[in-house]
Amino acid sequence: MSLAFEILAETAAGGRRGRLDLPHQAVETPVFMPVGTQGTVKAVAQDVLEGLGAQIILGNTYHLYLRPGHEAIGRMGGLHKFMSWRRAMLTDSGGFQVFSLNALRKVTDEGVQFRSHLDGSSHSFTPEHSIGVQVALGADICMAFDECTEYPAERARAEESLRLTMAWARRSREHFRAHGENVAWREGLGGRTQSLFGIVQGGMYADLRRQCAERLVEMDFDGYAIGGLSVGEPRELTLEMIAEVLPLLPKDKPRYVMGVGYPDEIEQYARMGVDMMDCVLPTRAARHGLLFTSEGRVNIKNKQYAEDQNPPDPRCDCPVCRRYSRAYLRHLMQAGEALSGTLNTIHNLAYYLGIMERVRGELESRTNG
Amino acid sequence: MSLAFEILAETAAGGRRGRLDLPHQAVETPVFMPVGTQGTVKAVAQDVLEGLGAQIILGNTYHLYLRPGHEAIGRMGGLHKFMSWRRAMLTDSGGFQVFSLNALRKVTDEGVQFRSHLDGSSHSFTPEHSIGVQVALGADICMAFDECTEYPAERARAEESLRLTMAWARRSREHFRAHGENVAWREGLGGRTQSLFGIVQGGMYADLRRQCAERLVEMDFDGYAIGGLSVGEPRELTLEMIAEVLPLLPKDKPRYVMGVGYPDEIEQYARMGVDMMDCVLPTRAARHGLLFTSEGRVNIKNKQYAEDQNPPDPRCDCPVCRRYSRAYLRHLMQAGEALSGTLNTIHNLAYYLGIMERVRGELESRTNG
Repeated sequence: MSLAFEILAETAAGGRRGRLDLPHQAVETPVFMPVGTQGTVKAVAQDVLEGLGAQIILGNTYHLYLRPGHEAIGRMGGLHKFMSWRRAMLTDSGGFQVFSLNALRKVTDEGVQFRSHLDGSSHSFTPEHSIGVQVALGADICMAFDECTEYPAERARAEESLRLTMAWARRSREHFRAHGENVAWREGLGGRTQSLFGIVQGGMYADLRRQCAERLVEMDFDGYAIGGLSVGEPRELTLEMIAEVLPLLPKDKPRYVMGVGYPDEIEQYARMGVDMMDCVLPTRAARHGLLFTSEGRVNIKNKQYAEDQNPPDPRCDCPVCRRYSRAYLRHLMQAGEALSGTLNTIHNLAYYLGIMERVRGELESRTNG
Repeated sequence: MSLAFEILAETAAGGRRGRLDLPHQAVETPVFMPVGTQGTVKAVAQDVLEGLGAQIILGNTYHLYLRPGHEAIGRMGGLHKFMSWRRAMLTDSGGFQVFSLNALRKVTDEGVQFRSHLDGSSHSFTPEHSIGVQVALGADICMAFDECTEYPAERARAEESLRLTMAWARRSREHFRAHGENVAWREGLGGRTQSLFGIVQGGMYADLRRQCAERLVEMDFDGYAIGGLSVGEPRELTLEMIAEVLPLLPKDKPRYVMGVGYPDEIEQYARMGVDMMDCVLPTRAARHGLLFTSEGRVNIKNKQYAEDQNPPDPRCDCPVCRRYSRAYLRHLMQAGEALSGTLNTIHNLAYYLGIMERVRGELESRTNG
């Protein structure tokens, strides 16, 4: 059963207002997806995320595989049920964490051997294994197992990395075709099942990116992601890579740029035709006291906010800005209180989700107008 | 303006179902008061506390004096406004923390010199200063400055400590009479103002406790607390001290036992005629993974819960038990996730508040039946 993606409106610049009909949730696009690394969007309860309008969140395959284990989650009916998240969910392939958290990894054509960052135990991920773990987790969308090319990377290195990613994409696709219908909630959701997205890599080489996109499209995935961005490159390069790849992707399939970005970036990419984005930035920055607001970035730790009774963002209608002052948020941070991370994260997510809501409205009105 | 306390029902055993008419909230008693040490009940947002039915919470004078400072909070309109808590609030005198957090304190008849546990800076608290700080914080109820007698304490030590506590109670009362009407919200709440409670000390010596209670009653406080309990003594002694003191306190004034206790304790004391209790136990234990349930204590870290899909407490209707499993709470704890503390705390507070709600119902029906 192929993924239903309806484009409701399009702009001349390529922006699309769409609806992604996932088994657990019809997702209005373009959409920002909060990151729930270990089965929780850090510091925020599920009902609060619902209240903020989060439609789809991420789970991290690498982390959940190590703890509590995909088999345990599978036995408990999958990640949705385990964490009591009723809306849509996407799992990454585990590749990014295998590479970023493991200096001692060993990569072969078969897959990656690595040591757990938790206890040093040995593990290996192959495309087949990554898909197996993702089927057990049971997100609405799975990702093909890929190698995220580091930045900077020599051309030869990027080519070799891309060769692996494309071979692994094919194996991911084959394994998913054979086993992807085994998801725990299939019967409960009328026979619907998971989708699989391919990931375009190629470092910062436009021709490699194009080559990868074309090959992946031949493999016929349910959607296409652009990975390996926001890995340290200048933002012009990020934009260039996205601009190179987007026109090569099928118009009727969702397009997902992974791991970006700042508020103005997600807005820009959404207007270019990116349908889905995720990033740890709003949640991670929040825990460090960095708030994104309509007046720019606010470092809530700053002394200037010690007696500032204004809300974090005077133009924001989120539950935090409606109730609490900058002075209070600063105090919570200074005092090392847990509520600090919670309230800061709620605001930042509201800000990111609000941007996408506004962009969706504008994409509709520009088309209709 | 004296504190209005209405007794709605009484039992033969001395239990009272009452209503305490505080400026910010009519508080149904007996009541359990969650502790909000640094202007936050750790890990739980104010709207969640409201949803749980918390009527009155504590603030810690010592902590708030040091950070962010009572003068700053006073300039911002008081602690209610600072932390956006609309219901009732009580501040302790700072005495307990001065003694428990400061090995190098110096006690004289005048007051206590101590060093900040944050930066080692020198400070002193006198009864007058404690009341001044509490007027700036602006809780509905202030506490007289006292010395909490340690356990065990020789009789001579308990007598000397009691002498200080009684002298300081008198000075607290006098300073409050002169300055207690200066609270920031007085005009906004129709001229209503703060109340002041005295604290019965005396160690574990029944005659000293009785002597203290009698003297404090002569001083005419708005309510009376029994302090210096749950400091390491056996529970029989705690009970004995409460039983000695309660009959000496005016029936028409609220009675508050400070810093207790386990679920069965707060129920027992409420049935004996204690109107108010506070304790860090439900919130602190929660952060260490200890849940109080109708089936007894659950250490959610235990491996036996790894795949336990039951709610923390099958008979509990709190937002956590309605939505999450023991397996998920265990995972959050194992993974060191902030949501662990939040969800565990919400359940434990719901459990404590639920006990008091049930006891209030029973006190009413036993009287009427």
